[in-house]
Amino acid sequence: MTVADKPETRRTIWEAEPGQPVTFDQTLLPFACQEISLNNVETCATAIRTMQVRGAPLIGAVAAWGMALALREDASDTGLAQAYDKLIDTRPTAVNLRWALDRVLHEIRPRKESTRAAAAIELARKICDDDVACNRQIGAYAMATLNQLPDRNRAAPNQKPQYLTHCNAGRIATVGYGTALAPFYLMHEAGDSFHVWVGETRPRNQGASLTAWELGQAGISHTIIADNAGGLLMMRGEVDAVIVGCDRVVANGDVINKIGTYLKALAAAAHDVPFYVACPTSTIDLQCASGSHVTIENRDPDEVTHIQGVLLDGNISRMRITPHGSPAANPAFDITPASLITKLITERGIVDASEDGIRSLGIERQD
Amino acid sequence: MTVADKPETRRTIWEAEPGQPVTFDQTLLPFACQEISLNNVETCATAIRTMQVRGAPLIGAVAAWGMALALREDASDTGLAQAYDKLIDTRPTAVNLRWALDRVLHEIRPRKESTRAAAAIELARKICDDDVACNRQIGAYAMATLNQLPDRNRAAPNQKPQYLTHCNAGRIATVGYGTALAPFYLMHEAGDSFHVWVGETRPRNQGASLTAWELGQAGISHTIIADNAGGLLMMRGEVDAVIVGCDRVVANGDVINKIGTYLKALAAAAHDVPFYVACPTSTIDLQCASGSHVTIENRDPDEVTHIQGVLLDGNISRMRITPHGSPAANPAFDITPASLITKLITERGIVDASEDGIRSLGIERQD
Repeated sequence: MTVADKPETRRTIWEAEPGQPVTFDQTLLPFACQEISLNNVETCATAIRTMQVRGAPLIGAVAAWGMALALREDASDTGLAQAYDKLIDTRPTAVNLRWALDRVLHEIRPRKESTRAAAAIELARKICDDDVACNRQIGAYAMATLNQLPDRNRAAPNQKPQYLTHCNAGRIATVGYGTALAPFYLMHEAGDSFHVWVGETRPRNQGASLTAWELGQAGISHTIIADNAGGLLMMRGEVDAVIVGCDRVVANGDVINKIGTYLKALAAAAHDVPFYVACPTSTIDLQCASGSHVTIENRDPDEVTHIQGVLLDGNISRMRITPHGSPAANPAFDITPASLITKLITERGIVDASEDGIRSLGIERQD
Repeated sequence: MTVADKPETRRTIWEAEPGQPVTFDQTLLPFACQEISLNNVETCATAIRTMQVRGAPLIGAVAAWGMALALREDASDTGLAQAYDKLIDTRPTAVNLRWALDRVLHEIRPRKESTRAAAAIELARKICDDDVACNRQIGAYAMATLNQLPDRNRAAPNQKPQYLTHCNAGRIATVGYGTALAPFYLMHEAGDSFHVWVGETRPRNQGASLTAWELGQAGISHTIIADNAGGLLMMRGEVDAVIVGCDRVVANGDVINKIGTYLKALAAAAHDVPFYVACPTSTIDLQCASGSHVTIENRDPDEVTHIQGVLLDGNISRMRITPHGSPAANPAFDITPASLITKLITERGIVDASEDGIRSLGIERQD
């Protein structure tokens, strides 16, 4: 039985039985998909550290479950602190990881030991439910936005609408629905007819592997393209809108997202294609004034020079695709200026990518 | 001894002894490089058909040599016609293939049989020499252009100039020097210090495999990047100019080149980075009014879903990198509007990408 056969797997983390969370190993996607029982805090820590789970919201959810499972074994202050320490080091720079752990710590520590485990399980469930609700709301706003686009049939009459996305801002990066992909799940549920162009998203290929996989599992019509093809498709009128997720939105509305987002935004602007950023308010960083202040992470050049795939004999393997001795550079994110963004779509509403737009969301600056 | 050790391999096709042409098999680049003796017309036809040789000028040169070698065995009219037929079908859509074969046919047929083979060898040599001279001239113009750029040190003082290229318009696509890469070979010969960003050029990865390989063989400083990274580099001021080759330039100056070229041109325009197209006049098509009239070739989706590389055990292999069942689209070229192109650099001079600019080259329209 594949993951897709089970209705509950619309969620990326679910309970096999009450209090027994399960997820699946994302490291071998899209070539293999194996469930992992998250039996204890160690399993949760390993899943985060080895990137069996990825995506900020999902990492936060697994971390919260890790705390709850630890407290079931040792609900003392020492147990609580040990669980926190064990989990916080798994992905040192993941903001959502720290957020989830701090939330559990602060809500559970004041309680007496005998009630801590049960309360932590409830809290882990709530963190998961909240993520799903947030994403569903983003999806509803995004779906309404896409459905209201006036100039739908650019390429041919009766052409079903076509949307382009980049990277994976999908359900498997979250507990459910995803952000940029959420409208597609809602439109699919509603029986709408549409098509998704999936940019492969070199060098890590999250589009070609993760987004294509999850859309395929859901039966949503999609086609993988090389990132290079996005401009031609927009020039031809074959893209009705672009929708992407984001890693961070800064105070002036600039968006930090996976490398390559900026080039798609330039092409969208050149061809009057609306460019939307699905943006949970948790990703808005009011302390950063503009994109030019953001330090872009340079990741391992091996991600450019090597690639994972499945050989003709079915074995999953890794190979080098560049000449021996040629260096590679791997900036992981780029900056899309606010001026190229049609709207930010958040769970609190749809706003302009501007200081005024972001202010209207009523987010408090946390200095 | 590797190919790089030999000074004559600045040419991609050379004579081991007079009348014995040699090239190397490009299908396994950059992982292996094996010489092929072009002993007869069959070897030449196979080399073209199986893409052991690629690139319009190189295909033309190998075809001309194929004719010469055939005539050495049978210089009759029948022999001439058979050789032509054998070679013309190897790559049906290659304009340069037909051009080279027609040229040999028309120059050799009027001669008496006893002189045909020798004359055809001289003609094959001349076709090779002419290609090298043409490319060297493009390189000289391009080098002068790059060296005159006023605003060289965008990123940091004393930063050596940095250029971005896409795909492979290099020496191994031609008989020598290449077109877009020609200025780099000349600058390297002159002892200049500079750096080349090599876009990997998905889906066929001609940048990451061929361009990186040939620059590496020549000892030219370069770094491979995912195509997605081009926009960020230009935003950061880390690109002094973009230079690419082209498949076709049409009458209004629009450029048809490898998919992804257009996105780089948009980013260059957004950041005032000069965008040059190295363009032998043989690629100018006056019969086509503008880029919108060009039919873009859709190539096999397997080029997106599968990739060649070298496994950790050293074996060259091929694997699938996308989910089973997810379709892919593979448009091979895109259209860069003339308005985004700073200059066309031809062997006859540097001109605007416009009707007037192209007219000033004095090319005759062939209706």
